[in-house]
Amino acid sequence: MRYGAEILVYLKEGVLDTQGKAVAASLTRLGYDDPSVRVGKYIRVEIEASDIDSAKETFDKMCKDLLVNAIVEDYTVKVEELR
Amino acid sequence: MRYGAEILVYLKEGVLDTQGKAVAASLTRLGYDDPSVRVGKYIRVEIEASDIDSAKETFDKMCKDLLVNAIVEDYTVKVEELR
Repeated sequence: MRYGAEILVYLKEGVLDTQGKAVAASLTRLGYDDPSVRVGKYIRVEIEASDIDSAKETFDKMCKDLLVNAIVEDYTVKVEELR
Repeated sequence: MRYGAEILVYLKEGVLDTQGKAVAASLTRLGYDDPSVRVGKYIRVEIEASDIDSAKETFDKMCKDLLVNAIVEDYTVKVEELR
């Protein structure tokens, strides 16, 4: 069975988001009124797995192994079965 | 009133995702079984607005003005009122 995950990776509260600050400054220069911006990663992964629980386990392990820097980043994983 | 938007920006179908390919190759080297990976941006923006409709309009304009390269990227915007 094929499963898909939508993984959102974002900096923890309190961690300086230089990319977010740069985007906010650009938006302000374009005339927007002082937006606050945080920029993270949206990762879509698809794998084959026997069932949804083992798929969830694999996606979570991928985050810990490679996709997320646990020192400064948090993440969420949304898993769905694919037709 | 303060409003927050969760903006997902991702490459259109058919556009080569070099970052996604690199992540997939790294995951395969770590022993994962041939995952398919697409990498995009997760942008969280907060602004002041008079009501939710004008907030939605502003967030959409931000995407068109700066956050999204409409030639190769698609995007979704989820807006909520913040306490």
